[in-house]
Amino acid sequence: MSKVLIIGATGTIGRAVVGALAGRHDVVEVGATRGSHRVNFKDPSDVTRLFESIGRVGHVVTAAGNVHFGSLAETTVAQFWTGLTDKLMGQVNVVLIGQAWVNDGGSFTLTSGITADQPVRDGTNAATVNKALEGFALGASIDLKRGLRINVVSPTMLEESVPSFGPYFPGFDPVSSSRVGLAYVRSIEGGDTGQVYRVGY
Amino acid sequence: MSKVLIIGATGTIGRAVVGALAGRHDVVEVGATRGSHRVNFKDPSDVTRLFESIGRVGHVVTAAGNVHFGSLAETTVAQFWTGLTDKLMGQVNVVLIGQAWVNDGGSFTLTSGITADQPVRDGTNAATVNKALEGFALGASIDLKRGLRINVVSPTMLEESVPSFGPYFPGFDPVSSSRVGLAYVRSIEGGDTGQVYRVGY
Ligand SMILES: NC(=O)c1ccc[n+]([C@@H]2O[C@H](COP(=O)([O-])OP(=O)(O)OC[C@H]3O[C@@H](n4cnc5c(N)ncnc54)[C@H](OP(=O)(O)O)[C@@H]3O)[C@@H](O)[C@H]2O)c1
Ligand SMILES: NC(=O)c1ccc[n+]([C@@H]2O[C@H](COP(=O)([O-])OP(=O)(O)OC[C@H]3O[C@@H](n4cnc5c(N)ncnc54)[C@H](OP(=O)(O)O)[C@@H]3O)[C@@H](O)[C@H]2O)c1
Repeated sequence: MSKVLIIGATGTIGRAVVGALAGRHDVVEVGATRGSHRVNFKDPSDVTRLFESIGRVGHVVTAAGNVHFGSLAETTVAQFWTGLTDKLMGQVNVVLIGQAWVNDGGSFTLTSGITADQPVRDGTNAATVNKALEGFALGASIDLKRGLRINVVSPTMLEESVPSFGPYFPGFDPVSSSRVGLAYVRSIEGGDTGQVYRVGY
Repeated sequence: MSKVLIIGATGTIGRAVVGALAGRHDVVEVGATRGSHRVNFKDPSDVTRLFESIGRVGHVVTAAGNVHFGSLAETTVAQFWTGLTDKLMGQVNVVLIGQAWVNDGGSFTLTSGITADQPVRDGTNAATVNKALEGFALGASIDLKRGLRINVVSPTMLEESVPSFGPYFPGFDPVSSSRVGLAYVRSIEGGDTGQVYRVGY
């Protein structure tokens, strides 16, 4: 039973993680506009404020972040930046700042997505950001101190997200939120570091 | 014989690319401070100016871009951004803007590096940026129009770079610049798209 901070706890994946950890850990639910705690992870000073208010934790999960969807021919440089500032640097900010607040042997579990490996139309920004997160975790896995670990969960589209994301993922077989939740348990309670758990591919 | 724009032509890898393409293509050498043309690829308006001054090309190579090296525990959010604005968005800017200037069936060839797959100490920013470039190329490969292709060359450390990079890559077997140059020829003249050529791993 450790304290697990879940950033994005109020979202589709976050709720799955909360469900999977229930009874196993002491979960701290963080959202942007909902949840028992709030953070805007794009703002490093707000991430610092969050850790200062919560204190040391055993593990951190990030399941949040938007990317830009749109055809490459029409994507502007400014639009491309949105995914970098949000889904990529939001999660990176949490690790850079949070590494001082996680107990020895604790873990970070980030969230990427299937477009890292299987491209979809209009998904270049998503592919970039998702692969970047996986590279970040690989690099950090040998550089984090005190036995801290870091892994990434890369799910395909969740069943709950078919109404919103279905048009971008034609013919993709959606995965249950319970299977996705398991990958976060494995990252937190197992010994892995530098791994990508591809769920539902 | 096509016109090939090489951004970073005056660098270690760029010179290898120029050498490999000599006699096969009409090479336009671009550097930041040297070369027959100049660009700061971090600045989208400067990239636009470059294409306006050169006009349509057959192929584009980017072999440029810095990342931040340093231990994760001491890396600030601002330092982490440097690799994103430079090596990642520099190359992305060239594709976003350049796609309108490349002839049908032409290609982009970007440059990542071995830390995308094999982490090194202090190399988290490099791993992030290199994987991001590979995700970008994968996503763009199915979204580019008019038969445009895009690939990434991911070399290990070059023999010429051992004096500067050697301390970061203990025990890594350096690769000759001529082998690295070949990968760019393969990307330009072959039919591949969405590929990563890992050279000297
Ligand atoms: N759903 C899928 O099928 C799927 C598949 C693969 C990957 N992913 C990735 O997984 C992540 C979460 O997806 P999701 O579908 O669960 O999203 P979601 O349902 O929209 O939930 C997003 C969560 O992130 C929080 N959040 C939003 N902006 C934030 C910010 N600036 N700082 C901190 N937290 C913020 C939200 O808080 P509030 O509720 O308070 O707004 C919410 O808890 C995304 O990066 C997505 O790309 C999703
Ligand atoms: N060398 C290696 O062993 C190795 C291995 C794997 C990957 N890489 C990657 O390959 C890329 C090139 O490496 P390198 O060793 O060839 O570097 P380098 O010798 O330092 O050459 C850099 C090249 O990029 C140009 N440049 C610098 N800043 C620029 C800017 N803002 N806009 C446009 N061009 C700019 C330079 O122009 P000026 O000469 O005019 O300054 C030069 O042509 C880097 O991203 C590096 O990470 C290198």
